[in-house]
Amino acid sequence: MSRSAIRTIAFDADDTLWRHQDLFETTQARFFDLLGDYHDGDWIAARLHDAEMRNLRLYGYGVKGFMLSMVETAIELTEGRIGGAEIQRILDLGKGMLDHPLELMPSAAEVLAQLAETYELMVVTKGDLFDQETKVARSGLGAHFKAVEVVSEKDAASYAAILRRHGIGPAHFLMVGNSLKSDVLPVLQVGGRAVHVPYELQWSHDRVADVAPGTHGYFEIASLAELPGLLADLEASPED
Amino acid sequence: MSRSAIRTIAFDADDTLWRHQDLFETTQARFFDLLGDYHDGDWIAARLHDAEMRNLRLYGYGVKGFMLSMVETAIELTEGRIGGAEIQRILDLGKGMLDHPLELMPSAAEVLAQLAETYELMVVTKGDLFDQETKVARSGLGAHFKAVEVVSEKDAASYAAILRRHGIGPAHFLMVGNSLKSDVLPVLQVGGRAVHVPYELQWSHDRVADVAPGTHGYFEIASLAELPGLLADLEASPED
Repeated sequence: MSRSAIRTIAFDADDTLWRHQDLFETTQARFFDLLGDYHDGDWIAARLHDAEMRNLRLYGYGVKGFMLSMVETAIELTEGRIGGAEIQRILDLGKGMLDHPLELMPSAAEVLAQLAETYELMVVTKGDLFDQETKVARSGLGAHFKAVEVVSEKDAASYAAILRRHGIGPAHFLMVGNSLKSDVLPVLQVGGRAVHVPYELQWSHDRVADVAPGTHGYFEIASLAELPGLLADLEASPED
Repeated sequence: MSRSAIRTIAFDADDTLWRHQDLFETTQARFFDLLGDYHDGDWIAARLHDAEMRNLRLYGYGVKGFMLSMVETAIELTEGRIGGAEIQRILDLGKGMLDHPLELMPSAAEVLAQLAETYELMVVTKGDLFDQETKVARSGLGAHFKAVEVVSEKDAASYAAILRRHGIGPAHFLMVGNSLKSDVLPVLQVGGRAVHVPYELQWSHDRVADVAPGTHGYFEIASLAELPGLLADLEASPED
């Protein structure tokens, strides 16, 4: 099957352009320490995960919802005995996440500057609108992007709406991200292509059944540094 | 100055299409009751407002940020003596807001159904992406809207970006909302027209200096029920 040239490359944000999961893990570890007198880490982690899943319908994804679920879990696990000062420390942990300096992924700055000369670049990310827009601004990468799309779910319908709104043909669209579930599968469903850049740590909610890379418009690279080379290969051999 | 015909009408969401401020007021009153043994209502209100303003940079607008600021205020005002069970009641107050049945503003359903036959309708709202999309879905009005735009600030730059993205000429754009600061002034700045539908209660953060209605593309109505009549007048006399 002959494929058209890629014109638009969209990037996931957290754990694709900059580190995020590490910050979640560090914050969780401090949260476990805080409750260490009451329970062990695994039990706290399981209860926190339950709270996040239970609250997803009301809070959606993002740091503020995570903060509220940590507070709720702390109250539940201490049967209300937790004090105000400890709750304030949980709030401060969350604020620290929101205020944390962004650490860009290796090669992100160079690769985006290079690709912006040839392609139209976008961000397509899930999470808190305010939080994500702030991070794009703080990343120093903002000028490379024609658009920043924050969606509440990354499914085929969301991608189809974004492509329609920007007048992008799916055959000219490539999505780059660390999540098979959010960045690869739904993009293939709408006829686009996708590059998976796995991150070392993956949130347990974010796993899907395996898909074989290298087929049906799906590619896998170990780092953003490999993206220009992959694009050059695709341009040189437009046959799938 | 001759004006073009209106083609797109955008609506603010909270307190324009459905009641929201009432729910904030009710929740605040319950929060004051909860801390009534420690302080009087005015003092709690002032400290809560301080916390909201202090946290705006990190949290942006929305219910989740409001919940976190309530928890922080409760800890501050009780010097950490507040118990876990009381914090849980604050979380439950916030969850109640997120889960509350939407009460549409008078005539909203009829007026939108009528206008959707002639105009392209949109929502342009500030706040939590997830929360606002959920509310549009729950409102039963979703089918009338060609687009739902959730922005982190409603300023001239945001409106200009929305108009550009949708290919709407400012002269063909009318914004309808309850806030002079967010729904009227920035729209006039980018060359659009705006209809102010004041709500009984206005958040203190949301007040601006007076602008005289009826001039420069700015109109005021008491209820959405008056919108079709205003539009008919505008169509009949396209001179400003």
